This record gives sequence, C-alpha cells and structure tokens, in this order.
Amino acid sequence: MDTWRTAIVDAGPGHIRVKGYDVLDLMQRASFTDLIFLLHHNRLPTAGERRLIDAILIGVADHGAGAPSCAAARLAASGNRASLSAAVAAGLLTIGDEHGGAGSGCMELIASGLARMASDGSSLTAAARGVVNEAKVRGSRLPGFGHRVHSATDPRVPVLFALAEESGLARDGVRFARALEDAVGELITPLPLNIDGALAAVLVDLGFPPPVGRLIFIIGRVAGLSAEVLEEHTREKPMRIKIPVTYDGVAARPVGADPCVGSNREE
Amino acid sequence: MDTWRTAIVDAGPGHIRVKGYDVLDLMQRASFTDLIFLLHHNRLPTAGERRLIDAILIGVADHGAGAPSCAAARLAASGNRASLSAAVAAGLLTIGDEHGGAGSGCMELIASGLARMASDGSSLTAAARGVVNEAKVRGSRLPGFGHRVHSATDPRVPVLFALAEESGLARDGVRFARALEDAVGELITPLPLNIDGALAAVLVDLGFPPPVGRLIFIIGRVAGLSAEVLEEHTREKPMRIKIPVTYDGVAARPVGADPCVGSNREE
Amino acid sequence: MDTWRTAIVDAGPGHIRVKGYDVLDLMQRASFTDLIFLLHHNRLPTAGERRLIDAILIGVADHGAGAPSCAAARLAASGNRASLSAAVAAGLLTIGDEHGGAGSGCMELIASGLARMASDGSSLTAAARGVVNEAKVRGSRLPGFGHRVHSATDPRVPVLFALAEESGLARDGVRFARALEDAVGELITPLPLNIDGALAAVLVDLGFPPPVGRLIFIIGRVAGLSAEVLEEHTREKPMRIKIPVTYDGVAARPVGADPCVGSNREE
Amino acid sequence: MDTWRTAIVDAGPGHIRVKGYDVLDLMQRASFTDLIFLLHHNRLPTAGERRLIDAILIGVADHGAGAPSCAAARLAASGNRASLSAAVAAGLLTIGDEHGGAGSGCMELIASGLARMASDGSSLTAAARGVVNEAKVRGSRLPGFGHRVHSATDPRVPVLFALAEESGLARDGVRFARALEDAVGELITPLPLNIDGALAAVLVDLGFPPPVGRLIFIIGRVAGLSAEVLEEHTREKPMRIKIPVTYDGVAARPVGADPCVGSNREE
Repeated sequence: MDTWRTAIVDAGPGHIRVKGYDVLDLMQRASFTDLIFLLHHNRLPTAGERRLIDAILIGVADHGAGAPSCAAARLAASGNRASLSAAVAAGLLTIGDEHGGAGSGCMELIASGLARMASDGSSLTAAARGVVNEAKVRGSRLPGFGHRVHSATDPRVPVLFALAEESGLARDGVRFARALEDAVGELITPLPLNIDGALAAVLVDLGFPPPVGRLIFIIGRVAGLSAEVLEEHTREKPMRIKIPVTYDGVAARPVGADPCVGSNREE
Repeated sequence: MDTWRTAIVDAGPGHIRVKGYDVLDLMQRASFTDLIFLLHHNRLPTAGERRLIDAILIGVADHGAGAPSCAAARLAASGNRASLSAAVAAGLLTIGDEHGGAGSGCMELIASGLARMASDGSSLTAAARGVVNEAKVRGSRLPGFGHRVHSATDPRVPVLFALAEESGLARDGVRFARALEDAVGELITPLPLNIDGALAAVLVDLGFPPPVGRLIFIIGRVAGLSAEVLEEHTREKPMRIKIPVTYDGVAARPVGADPCVGSNREE
Repeated sequence: MDTWRTAIVDAGPGHIRVKGYDVLDLMQRASFTDLIFLLHHNRLPTAGERRLIDAILIGVADHGAGAPSCAAARLAASGNRASLSAAVAAGLLTIGDEHGGAGSGCMELIASGLARMASDGSSLTAAARGVVNEAKVRGSRLPGFGHRVHSATDPRVPVLFALAEESGLARDGVRFARALEDAVGELITPLPLNIDGALAAVLVDLGFPPPVGRLIFIIGRVAGLSAEVLEEHTREKPMRIKIPVTYDGVAARPVGADPCVGSNREE
Repeated sequence: MDTWRTAIVDAGPGHIRVKGYDVLDLMQRASFTDLIFLLHHNRLPTAGERRLIDAILIGVADHGAGAPSCAAARLAASGNRASLSAAVAAGLLTIGDEHGGAGSGCMELIASGLARMASDGSSLTAAARGVVNEAKVRGSRLPGFGHRVHSATDPRVPVLFALAEESGLARDGVRFARALEDAVGELITPLPLNIDGALAAVLVDLGFPPPVGRLIFIIGRVAGLSAEVLEEHTREKPMRIKIPVTYDGVAARPVGADPCVGSNREE
C-alpha cells in the first residue's frame, strides 16, 4: 500500500508536531481555539481572530436538548449506553444542509458575490441583489437566513458582527452578508441572517474556504452533544424515550390477498 | 409534541403489521428479500422480482476487506470493540456518490433520458447520446460506469441483466442503460457499466424511485460489513491496523516564531 | 503497511468469491438470506435454517417509526438530506445493550447455562435457576426478557419457536431459553421472553457465536431504517421534528457573578 | 409525548442560556474551553483549570493521519464527499476502550483506588499495588498505560503533570496515577502512563466523573478529524485509498458442491 501523505501532523516515537509546532509547546502556551484555527489554517490566530472563533464555537455549541442533533444523540445514548462515541456521532449525523450546515452554503454565496464584484465591478448592493435574484429564479433556499426559533432576530448575529467590527476584522464578507440581508428583505421577504449566515461572513473574512463553515459548526456542536449524552446517562433511564406515532397506511390485509405471494409460495 | 405519521409499520401491544401484513404471517411465509421489497414498495414481489432483488443484494454485499466501507468498519471494530453497531455504522458512512452510491445517480440519469424520450419522441440512441453529451459539457462523471478493480467488465452486470431478461422484467431501464453504455463508448471512451449502473437499470424497471439505488446498496453491504466486523473481532487483536503516513507539511518551527502568538500570550 | 488477511471475500479483476463461492453463481441461485448465513458461517443454509433466518430478520426489521433506531434515523434524514447512509447509520447507532442488542447477551447466558450442564451434569431446570439466581445476586438485568410495548407476550416468540420445532432445529438453545423463562417467573417475576431472547435461542441452536445475536438484529433493522428514511424524505419537510423540552437547571445568572470568570477575564 | 427535561441549555425566541449564562455574554467574554468546562460542570473554570483543559484538548486532538480515527474519517471522506459530518462521525466511531477511550477506564481505576484509601486507610503505595494486583489476577489490561508509538515515554504526560503542579491543581488523582505507574513497573513490567492516563488523573483532580475522560478525548479529536477530512477533500481524489488484502479462506468451490444448496434450489 502506498504511504499516505499529510501536511497536518507529524508524529513518531517521542514527538508530535502540528503544522510544525511541537504539541508540547502548544499544550503549554496555546488555547484549544488556537489549535482549531491552526489545524484549518497554516498559522496561529491573532487575539482578534481567536475571539471570533471562540465566539462562533460558543454560539453554535448547543441550542437545547430538542434540536435534531441533540435529540438523536440522546436517542443513541438511551439505547446504546456502552458507546459514548456512538451517541455523539449519531448527533453529528443530523448535521447537513438543513441543520447546522448552512454556513458552508452561505460562504459559497458570499464568495460568488464577491467574485462578481471583482470581475464586473458591480456594487455591493447590485451583487447582493444579483445573488438573491438568482436564488429566486432557481427556487432555491438562501442558506444562512431564517431560524425556526429566533424568527425575528437571531440574537447571536449582532454580537458576532460587533466583535468583528471591534477587532477590525469585519471586511467584505460581513459587508456582503449585510447587503444580502437587505436584498432578501427587498426582493423576497424580510428574513434575518441567522448564526450560520453570520459565522459564514466572518469565516470568509478570516480567509477560510467554504467547508469550514460546516466543520466549525461540527466542532462547536460536539461539545454540546457530549454534555447532552452525559446528562442522558446521568439523569435518565435507558429506553425512556417514546415518540408517539400514528399509522395512516394500508389497512390490515392477509398475506394470501396478494396474488403474487400466493403463487410465489407454491413454486 | 405532534404525533408522527407513518405508512410503514403499525405496532402496538400484541401486534406488528408491515404495510398491512401481520408480521407473524410474513415470518412464516415470506423471505427477508420479500420484506425488503415490501418496505420500499406497497406490495410483495413476484418470483421474478424477488430473484432480481436477491441478485442485487448478493452482488453488492461484499467486495473484499479493503473496500472503503469494509476498511472503515474494521478500523472501528479495532478501536471500539464494545459497539458492533458503531463499527457497522462507520462502514456505512463511507457510502456516498463516490462509493456504492452511484446507483441513485444512474437512476436519475435513466429517468431523465426516459422522460426526454416520452416528451420529445427522441429515439433510445438519441436520448442516450443527449444525456452523455450533457454530462460531457458539464464535465460531470457518469454514475454507474467504470470500476477501479473490474476495469474491463464488471462480471456482475451481464448476470444481472440476463436474470432480468429471463424473467421478462428487463424493460426501458435496462435498454436505456445499454444505450448509455454504447453512447459513452462512442462519445467519451469505452467505459463499462458497473454493478451500480446495472442495479439502477433494473430498479427503474421494477418501479423504484432513485434513492432506492443507494438504499439497496446499503442494505446489501451491511450484511458484508457485519461479517467483516465479526472477523476483525475473531481473528485480530485490537489496534492492529497501522497506516503508513509521510508528513510533507511545514517544517518544525518554534511557537515563538509566529509573531501573533508571542504577542497574544503576553496580553 | 502489512497486507490484511481475510477469509470472507476474494475479489480481483473479473472475479468475486464469497467463502469460495463465485458471486455470479450465488446471484443466480441463492437468496440474500442464504448469503447472510454464508457470510457468518462457512456454508450455505438448509431450507429449514433459511426459514429461521428469514423469520428472524423479518421479525426485527421494523417496529414502528417511534422506536429509538427509527426516530434517530428520521432526525438525521430531516437535518442532513444529502446523505442517506448517514441517516441509516444514525439509526444503527442507537442499537446496543438496551435496544436491539439483547440477543447477544442472551446467547451468552444460554451458552453459560449449557456449559454448566455439560460440566457438572446439572439438569436444564437447575442450570436455568442457577443462571437466574446469579443475575439476581449481581442485580443485573436478564437480556432477552420483557418488552416495553408487548408487556404480556411478544407475539413473535411462539411463531419463531414453532418454526424451529417444525423443522427439527429447536435443540438445547430453545429448551434452555424456555427453562430460563420459567425460572425468571418463579425466582423473580413473570417476564416473557422477547424477540431478542427467542432469536438468541435459535441462533445458539444454529451454531452461531454470541455477537451474531446483535449483528443479525442490525442486518434486519437496516431494512426498516432504509424505509423509514425514504418515507421521511418523501412525505415530510426538512427540520419538521420538534421535541418539547423543559429546562430545570440553574437560574439565569450574569457571567460576572462567577468569581472565577471575573478574575480570569481581568488577567 | 412527555416533555424532556434538561439542565444544560434553555433556548427560546430571542434567548439562549447555557447553565444560566446568557450565550451572548459568553460569546463576548469566555473561551470555547471555558464553555466546554461549563457544559460538563456547573461553573466556569479558573485560569489554572482552563489551562489544563486546553492542554488536554490540544494533546489529544490529532496524532497523525494514520491513527484509526483519522484513517476512518479519511475513508469516509474519500467515498462519501457530500457529507462532512458523516466523515467526522466515522472517525469518532473508532473511539472506544481500545482507542482514545482509556481515560474513562483509568478514571475508574483511580477512583476505586482513592475509595480504598479512604475506606481502609491504606497508603497510596498499597492501594496502587492493590489495584494493579487485581487487574493482574483478572488478566485485564490497565487502561492509561502504554502507547504503540511512544513506547518509552509519552512526552505529553510530564508536560501535563507539570502544568497541573504549577497551578496547584495536582492532587490525589495525579499522585495516585504516579503510584500506579510505579506499581505496574514493579508488579508487571515497566509500562509508562500515556496521555489517556495523564488526562484521567487531572480530570479526577478537577472533579469530573469517569465518562468525561472519553468525552474530552472525543471533543479534542473532532478538531483533528475535521482538519483531516478537509485535507482529504482538498488534496486527494475520491476513492484513492486501496488497502491490500490477502484471502486465506476456503478455496474456490462450486455452489452445487454444497449438498444443502443443491437440494434447496430444487424444492
């Protein structure tokens, strides 16, 4: 088998280096958030960058036991007590375009808008309207807008944007996200940016590629899932969860009533 | 919480019915393959339909311990012995567009080609060429063609198609898949249908929607993954797997060399 | 890297053999259930054995959309539409000692009882009473007994045992499971065998090792999970599931109220 | 359905509170590591506690692309590109008693030793020897000792213990772990504490229950898995991974050679 290659970690007897830094130095001097930044970038963050990544990770870590990710983790914790990793993984598996994954999609939206501005010199407003109109024509949803609980405003958005402004790190990404929000309100219906849209804007300004929008959500949420699984084990009995279900399908019927089976069974 | 609705299973104290059939009758008279068909359809299969589903499930169940799905299941079985379900699940998670999932994509291709024939009256050959040309223009891969091991011919394809012909169940789906194979050879390069492409053709002819192409692969492969996990537990020591890795990233550097960290750490 | 070894599948350009059988022959002549038996054994099943494995797989495939496995699969299908395998895997991850996994534990119980009979010549009744008393002393649950829905009788049990009797395949495993059920009733409380206990007894009689008790449940259930995921995609909107939650933890408090944080934040 | 209860997060329109703290305050003032501490405790950490948790999370985040967790994540990233969460989850599923999970087991070992000291007044040395002798008698492995790469010394252990000493947080847990290491060397064979054993000692001293030993590994490792998955997508082609396999099972045989199948197929 060919050797795999990697530019992330170099580990061997007695040494572990992450992107060239000795893990022992990092253990003594860096924060976990620094390491997360480093793993997805090629350097350690500045203080301002660190604050933004901390804020994002904290903002997405947990939104209550009933969120799909938390609920799935609890169902697995309830039926499969022997494996903590299985329960956390079950929670992660609910994360996709529809739950927790909009950050990546919104980063692509922002990137395409910024590319348009660069290529044809259109203004921020015009480029944002262009992006919204295209989504409208395609009938596709705009990732990063609207929240089923925080329908009026997602309170995390202004806080994250204020932190980005304070540290001078809010640039075209944040500006474009705000222009998108205006364009959505004018061309479709008022629909506020949600935390996924806000973290997308900030991550674009920090220089990350679109997949990081979803990966950073995953990293943050796993902290919450871990706590949810621990609480399920600590406070609840196994198999306590019952979901009420109503059957509305085909009425009871004998197997013989199906002509195929009758004949099949005689063969 | 609202009650969920379902048209699959009605279970309550003392009874379980699958699509209206008493599970006790099914246990006595049906095969597991019959049940699989029933769960994804609204009736039990005929003998010919059953043979095709059996052949598909057998054909995809296992392709050797080194396939991505089997290898991932073995890695999980090796590190996390306490949870058999976690190991099988790790294997399933490798299944997607690039591994085991081409059946769904190919069913969509076939469906679009058949829709074109119905709407504009184009011939089988013309419709297949149209589908291939569109993929060529988009630069997208054609799901269901080519196999990294069976590069000349996937031996399972002619066997599955012969079974479909024998039972009179090979219809437009099979015909269109063959026309696609010809068009690929003419317009791109000779690239044989693989088992995913063949099962796609058959499942279209049996009336299943595209997602079933991937789901049937999942159902078949889980039988193989189960055996792979059992063999790993039975024959191997935990943590025996070592993947050789070469690091080709940033050279070793002191944390202080990064100006950001120095200053951050003093704040 | 060392080559891995396997005794399951031999696959190379143009050929795939499962335990020595050409997959092309199996596709034409065997059922999926035959293959499942073969993958976990070293031979194909007899007609009687096949009927029992079919009955087990059908019996465990699905118990309604609200079972933990099905509910977790639906939550993942609801939030992460792009990956069918992730949704099925999320369902599998709920399977463990407490849900769907009792078959393995019960097979170990039966095996230990049969070993006791063989070593000290104790009677079926005495050995069963011994096993139950030991569990009572340890305060451990008896896997394979009781069901939260079928509290009086699990209707699948007598059907499976009758099939085993009819085909002459009910041996010491089935006899011991019945003796265990009697001993539980006498020494603890009447608690009926459930499907996991019944399949355990049958699988012992068919010569399978304990892990197969859980693996066969996994294989059967994945068919149900597949159908549940397909129904969620087909009938429901993404993110439709809301689990009601009541918070009963620490009251709202300012971050400053925690002395640690105040001081930390000043550093 | 009954409402679920939770003491972790209270979220509703316009507000999210974690253990009573407004998430907006935390986003502005806390670090992600503070939040991780808070989620598994009932308060925010001191500066010294934060440093230890940071060091642990950094120490376990990644050990190279060939570790079972990273390799499984890459296999899933390679076959199932559409779902980042599935790839990260596949990596997590390899974590168990044998890989990354020893922290929990070692915390239980330390807790049982400390309980023995408290109950019968035995000395640190005697209690550690007692624990080791019991494991020796049972023939069970001692979780937290030995490492397949760092066979002489795991370099992360002295660094973590030094940080604990410096901040005055090294207490009975760290002392007992060291006594265990001595007892292992005397009674079995010299086998150094590994990072799992060291983090177990520190987490006991910080007041966490045993499951947190594994959960903290999961939280740290997910950061590494995320980077591994991103690298696989960025640098490698889908399906590039080939594991070499040697078949050593039953020789090729015709299906007819099995008497059961011949007869079955005629029935």
